[in-house]
Amino acid sequence: MEVGLLYSGGKDSTLAAVLLDPFYDVTALCCSCGITDDYTHAMEAARGVGLSAQLVELDREIAETAAEKIIADGFPRNGIQFIHEQALEAVARQTNYSVIADGTRRDDRVPTIDRSLAQSVEDRFGVSYLSPLAGYGREAIDALVEERLVVESGPSELIPKGDYETEIRALIAETHSPDLVEELFPKHTQSHVLSRK
Amino acid sequence: MEVGLLYSGGKDSTLAAVLLDPFYDVTALCCSCGITDDYTHAMEAARGVGLSAQLVELDREIAETAAEKIIADGFPRNGIQFIHEQALEAVARQTNYSVIADGTRRDDRVPTIDRSLAQSVEDRFGVSYLSPLAGYGREAIDALVEERLVVESGPSELIPKGDYETEIRALIAETHSPDLVEELFPKHTQSHVLSRK
Repeated sequence: MEVGLLYSGGKDSTLAAVLLDPFYDVTALCCSCGITDDYTHAMEAARGVGLSAQLVELDREIAETAAEKIIADGFPRNGIQFIHEQALEAVARQTNYSVIADGTRRDDRVPTIDRSLAQSVEDRFGVSYLSPLAGYGREAIDALVEERLVVESGPSELIPKGDYETEIRALIAETHSPDLVEELFPKHTQSHVLSRK
Repeated sequence: MEVGLLYSGGKDSTLAAVLLDPFYDVTALCCSCGITDDYTHAMEAARGVGLSAQLVELDREIAETAAEKIIADGFPRNGIQFIHEQALEAVARQTNYSVIADGTRRDDRVPTIDRSLAQSVEDRFGVSYLSPLAGYGREAIDALVEERLVVESGPSELIPKGDYETEIRALIAETHSPDLVEELFPKHTQSHVLSRK
């Protein structure tokens, strides 16, 4: 069975791939809104862990709307949730995968796909949606990552990553200012997977 | 890493074992409140799919309280939820597993372990709690079961099973009447796993 997995190159989506791997033929779906070429970091991480990878082009307006929400709110949460939902629906609509997946975790505050949204995506697009980390807490995930993956970690602005945040940061820096980016996105540790152990 | 999995011999808890198997050393924990010896059906199913199995003895009062709830409510939902939570906490308290798991699914109405209860169990007992099916909907689970397991299905009163319902039914039949059991438990299709494919 084939599954198309929303993939950023970070440890969560990579661990999701690792958990699916014994049961599905996993393709890493790397999204881009056409603002930067950072999706190539996700494609490279996918190759590093032996996954085939595919670019999924999202409308630029999705990133623009997410950026507007983040600027209006003063924090990234709702904008990130918006772009994740849009990416999931785009994958369900634009690709041929009848099983799609992401790396959302039980303890994530954002993005989250709750049961009713999961069922809604499945019903509207005729797909199965899997979130293999939904039944795993932080400690179990950290232990599995430690056992299975070689990860590079560091400040979010320095680690090459193919996630939504990278393009939204670039868009806000371009349309507003780099200083506003620093105000809106709290500094946090980001991860980028290099290979399997 | 070892994991102790609450195990009934049905397709959900067996599929949970299958999903955990590539990553953990899984032991099937078969619960009994001492009312019947139906836990042996779960032990047998575990052997059929190559899992080591262990009996976990629960207090008889847990089944008695569950039966009282079910009789008072007129339906099994809250009683089954109660006994599942008690079993999970018993496993966290009485066994040496630092990682425990169950076969609850995303679309289950009962039993369910929501995020706050999961975190509460983890914090109170110093364990990690995994629900590997929490990120899978019905269709994906059916497809994996079809691909991986040989299952015997039939009316719930005829299929040998080591789940909570079996002992609670026996208890209510003994303390009240078999007719009351038929009134309280809607007839449904039950499954019992024979082997892996």
